[in-house]
Amino acid sequence: MPRATLTISSKNYSSWSLRGWLLCRMAGLEFDEEIVTVDDPTVRAELLLLSPSVLVPRLTHNEVSVWDTLAIGAYLNEKFPKAGLLPKDMVARQHCRSICGEIHSGFHNLRSALPMNLKARHDRFKIFAGARPDIERVKAIWTECMERYGGPFLFGEPTIADAMYAPVCTRFQTYAVALDGPAAAYNEHILSWSLLQPWIAAAVEEPEEIEELDVEF
Amino acid sequence: MPRATLTISSKNYSSWSLRGWLLCRMAGLEFDEEIVTVDDPTVRAELLLLSPSVLVPRLTHNEVSVWDTLAIGAYLNEKFPKAGLLPKDMVARQHCRSICGEIHSGFHNLRSALPMNLKARHDRFKIFAGARPDIERVKAIWTECMERYGGPFLFGEPTIADAMYAPVCTRFQTYAVALDGPAAAYNEHILSWSLLQPWIAAAVEEPEEIEELDVEF
Repeated sequence: MPRATLTISSKNYSSWSLRGWLLCRMAGLEFDEEIVTVDDPTVRAELLLLSPSVLVPRLTHNEVSVWDTLAIGAYLNEKFPKAGLLPKDMVARQHCRSICGEIHSGFHNLRSALPMNLKARHDRFKIFAGARPDIERVKAIWTECMERYGGPFLFGEPTIADAMYAPVCTRFQTYAVALDGPAAAYNEHILSWSLLQPWIAAAVEEPEEIEELDVEF
Repeated sequence: MPRATLTISSKNYSSWSLRGWLLCRMAGLEFDEEIVTVDDPTVRAELLLLSPSVLVPRLTHNEVSVWDTLAIGAYLNEKFPKAGLLPKDMVARQHCRSICGEIHSGFHNLRSALPMNLKARHDRFKIFAGARPDIERVKAIWTECMERYGGPFLFGEPTIADAMYAPVCTRFQTYAVALDGPAAAYNEHILSWSLLQPWIAAAVEEPEEIEELDVEF
């Protein structure tokens, strides 16, 4: 059987790569990682702009080439239905898709003001006022899910939604965003999620190739 | 049977609303429209920022509430599989999901520099340099699809991808973006698509409630 390959960029900085990688691991797919180096000017430009990646992550699996995290999630759900990447309950499934859509197309201020940086810790970080409504919305989403489905993941068992929001959990840790109640419990659960640990370990060891990215906002 | 309701905002300015509305029409769903007026400060702020909507469009159908265009598309595809919202061919289906993901999470410069405005025509419009790579990427996506699947829609028959890219077609018309070859043929086909006509007719008649939006960039 041909192996699958997941193309990703920086493990420390690329939140989209992390999402795609978690989805493949959750699906039980065996895959090789291909790391796109910053010698590629397109990737470099993209990382510097902290913009969502167009072509990373990309999964190639047999004759299929699929890029974009939500598309990868939908493909894996289709290919590995037993992995439970979407909730079984029909109404919960649409709820899951809706909050995945929100994080996929929105939260631009959160993204740019609190970029993923797994190596860093900023305990007295001044959060850009424009990012605060995004943070409040994330808290509201998490709280509603935890209360409705009982945790410890957003829909009880792990789903695509947890892969989509995992980078936000790391940002809240990096920039010491205050949480309490169900949102705090969820954030803590994801940060101790066994699936996430090897990624974080690799990110922390990643060589610092793009010095411009090592800035404090 | 309870009717479905699609909550949308401006027909002239809201590209996300147009996408959600097209998806419901393509699925053959009977639905009522609920127009959120700009008296709502949240909606007003969002429209003024020309940012993707968080909660509009939203579809309520029986016990389901689903928001975000991709989530609405996935729900409708699940509920109305015969509508063919995704390509039947497995590899083409992943291609379709990938380019839908791209337009959903990306193309920010295109979005802000060339906002949807169905009432307007700007024949000598100076396009912001930052939006040009987005335009080139859209052309490349369309050209690849037209050549691979033969048109007249991106994947032959209408799919979610055409709903996702339809607002881009109207922007290219509004701001007189030069196209040729397969990309021009696709753009022209969508602008004459019968499903799109009633929306455009309603948009042109829409009262101008937000004067601040009636600006030329």
